[in-house]
Amino acid sequence: MTMPPAQPGDRLDAIDTPALLIDLDAFEANLAAVHSTVLGAGVALRAHGKAHKSVEIARRQVAAGAVGVCCQKVGEAEVFVAGGIRDVLVSNQVVAPAKLARLAALARQATVGVCVDAIGPVRALAQAAREAGSTVDVLIELDVGMARCGVTTDDEVLALARAVAEGAPHLRLRGLQAYHGSAQHRRSPQARAEAIATAAQKAAAARDALRAAGHACEVVTGAGTGTYRHEVASGVYTEVQTGSYVLMDADYFANEPDPADPPLRPVLTVWCQVISARPGQCVLDAGLKAFAVDSGPPRPLIEGWHVASLSDEHLVLRTKPGEPAAPLGIGDHVRLVPGHCDPTVNLHDHLVACRGDRVEALWRVDARGALF
Amino acid sequence: MTMPPAQPGDRLDAIDTPALLIDLDAFEANLAAVHSTVLGAGVALRAHGKAHKSVEIARRQVAAGAVGVCCQKVGEAEVFVAGGIRDVLVSNQVVAPAKLARLAALARQATVGVCVDAIGPVRALAQAAREAGSTVDVLIELDVGMARCGVTTDDEVLALARAVAEGAPHLRLRGLQAYHGSAQHRRSPQARAEAIATAAQKAAAARDALRAAGHACEVVTGAGTGTYRHEVASGVYTEVQTGSYVLMDADYFANEPDPADPPLRPVLTVWCQVISARPGQCVLDAGLKAFAVDSGPPRPLIEGWHVASLSDEHLVLRTKPGEPAAPLGIGDHVRLVPGHCDPTVNLHDHLVACRGDRVEALWRVDARGALF
Repeated sequence: MTMPPAQPGDRLDAIDTPALLIDLDAFEANLAAVHSTVLGAGVALRAHGKAHKSVEIARRQVAAGAVGVCCQKVGEAEVFVAGGIRDVLVSNQVVAPAKLARLAALARQATVGVCVDAIGPVRALAQAAREAGSTVDVLIELDVGMARCGVTTDDEVLALARAVAEGAPHLRLRGLQAYHGSAQHRRSPQARAEAIATAAQKAAAARDALRAAGHACEVVTGAGTGTYRHEVASGVYTEVQTGSYVLMDADYFANEPDPADPPLRPVLTVWCQVISARPGQCVLDAGLKAFAVDSGPPRPLIEGWHVASLSDEHLVLRTKPGEPAAPLGIGDHVRLVPGHCDPTVNLHDHLVACRGDRVEALWRVDARGALF
Repeated sequence: MTMPPAQPGDRLDAIDTPALLIDLDAFEANLAAVHSTVLGAGVALRAHGKAHKSVEIARRQVAAGAVGVCCQKVGEAEVFVAGGIRDVLVSNQVVAPAKLARLAALARQATVGVCVDAIGPVRALAQAAREAGSTVDVLIELDVGMARCGVTTDDEVLALARAVAEGAPHLRLRGLQAYHGSAQHRRSPQARAEAIATAAQKAAAARDALRAAGHACEVVTGAGTGTYRHEVASGVYTEVQTGSYVLMDADYFANEPDPADPPLRPVLTVWCQVISARPGQCVLDAGLKAFAVDSGPPRPLIEGWHVASLSDEHLVLRTKPGEPAAPLGIGDHVRLVPGHCDPTVNLHDHLVACRGDRVEALWRVDARGALF
C-alpha cells in the first residue's frame, strides 16, 4: 500500500499524479439510476466488486439496496467479508485445495457462494466445507454464449446438481450462474438484446430441468452494465451482477446507446501531469503501469489532443492535425478516461473521490492485487 | 501487500496461482553474461530497477558490479534507497514541487540523480535541493531518436547546463541521458546497430558542445537489453542502463539475434492453474490482472496450445488445429512467458525464486505501485 495521493479538502491541482479520480456526482447518479431500475423491477442486484475492489464502494452499493457483492477471487471475497459485506459470491471456478479451504473457512463468517462447472471441484469443495464445518452456496455455471467456463447441456447441469446434493448440508445449491460477458460490448442495441434473449432461454431451460429433477433453483444470476436491463426484463434472471456502472469504461461509451437504458455518466478518470513538452507534443507522467490498455488507450479530456503512444511510465499526447488544441505545457494536468476500468483500478492503491474540484474522500483499493 | 504465494522449500505444484516465477539458474546466467560483457569493456552498468522493482534483485545487481540502479519514479527511488542502494538515478523528468522536495530530501541519504529537459524544472529542483540542504546529480536528457522526452539542439543543452550551474552547489551536472527506447525492439541486428550509431553520434556532439563551453560531462548514460552491446562498443557511452536482462520479455526473443550478443535465457514466467476445461479448451486462473498485454499475449510453455483470449481473471487456451497437444485438465499447471515483463511484475507483490522445481526464496516487489 503506497501513500495516498491527496487528502480530503485538497483542490484538484494538489493531487499527486498519476491518481485515480472518482467524480462523486456522477458515481451517485449512476448508482441511483441502475439500482432504481433493477430494484424497481423486483430483481436483486449483486454488485460486482472485481470492478472497484473497494470496501467503501461495496458498502455504498449495499446501502443502496444491493444484496451483497460478487467477485472473482477468494482473496477478494476475504477482503469484502473483512470489510463487513455479509453476502459474497465468487462468480468463478475455484479448484485449488488451498483456495477451497480458505473459501470454506470464510463461509463461517458470512454467506459465501461459488460457481462450479465440473464434478471434481464440487467434491473437493464439499470436503473443504465439511472440514471447516461450514455451508457454502453453490451456483452451477451455465455457458450462455461466452464459450469460457460453464457447462452447456442439461445432463451436465443435473450431474453437477447431484454432486452438490451429495455434499449437503455443507453445500447448498442456489441455482445458476448465467453470465454472458461477450454480449456487454456488442455495439448495437439489437445485438445485445438478442444475445441476452438467447442466454435467458438457455438459463430458463436449465432451471426447468433442475426443478423437474427435484433440485432447487431459486437464483438465476448474471448480467453486466452493457445488458442488465435485458436480464432484468427477461423474467428468468432473479439477480444481476452489474459492476462497471459505478466507474464506466471508455469502451462502454462506444456502444450504440439503447434509448430505453438509463443514461450513465463517466465516473473514473486518471489525473496526470505534463512532465515534458515540445511543439505539438506533451508527455504525461503515466503509462502502462497507470493505465490498462487491453481495450485501447485512454481518452484524454482535452480539446485537440490525442494519445500518440504509451510506454511503461509515459503517455505521449500530440495535437490533432488541423484542429484547435487547448494550451498545454509542463506542470499542467490532464484527465483521461481509461479504456478498461477494472484492470486500471487494480494498478492503483487509492481512489480519490472528488466533488467538483475538491477532494471529498480517499477510498482504498482494498483488494488490489488479490490474485489468488 | 498480499500474502506470499509460496514458502521456501515448496515444490512448484504447491505454489498458489497465479504467481511470478524466477528461474534462478537463468537469472544468474543472464546477470553474469551481461555484467561481464559491460564491465569487461570498462563501462559502468546502472541496472534499471523499473523492470523488477525489487530491492533483493537490485542488491544482487550491485553485488555483481552495478554502480547502482536507475528507476522512473521518485517513489521507486525512495524504496531502493531505503533498501540500501547507495546510488539511484531517476532516469525521467520530475516536475511536481512535492516530488522534487522528496527527491531533494532523498539526496541527503544517498547519491541521487534525475534527468532534465526544461529550464523551469531545473530551477524548481535547485530550490528544492537548497531547501533540503542536499546536492542532486543532474543529467541533461537528449532525444537521440525516441521523440519522447529530451532536447535535440546544442543550444538547448547549453541553456540547461547554465541553469544547472546556477543551482550549484545544490545541483551538480553529471552529463547526458541518451536512451534510445524504441531501438530496443527493432527486429534486425542491423537496424538496432544503426539506431545506436546515430544515437552515439548525437550524444558525442552534445558532450563535446558541453565541454567546449566549459561544462562537465563525465557521464553519458542510456541503453537497454536490446542494444547495450552497441552502446558499450561506441566509445561514447560511459554507462548502460540495462534492466530487462534479468527477466526477459517474450518480445525480446522476437528480435532477430545478433550472433555477437551473449545469449540470454527466459527468466520470468507466470505460473497458472487450469480451473475449467472442455474438449480442446482449458481456462487458466490468470487474466489481465496477472499479465500486461500491451506487447501481446503471454506465450504458454506447453506443446500444442495457444492463447485464444484473455479477460480480467481468465486466460483461454485452445489446442492448435492439426498439432499434437500435451494433455491438460482441471487442476493442472501451465507456465507462460509474459509479453512485457515490467508492467507484468507491477501487477504482483512477490517474485517466487525457484531452482529447478523447488522454491528457493520469496522476493518482494517492493516498489509495486510506486506511481508517484
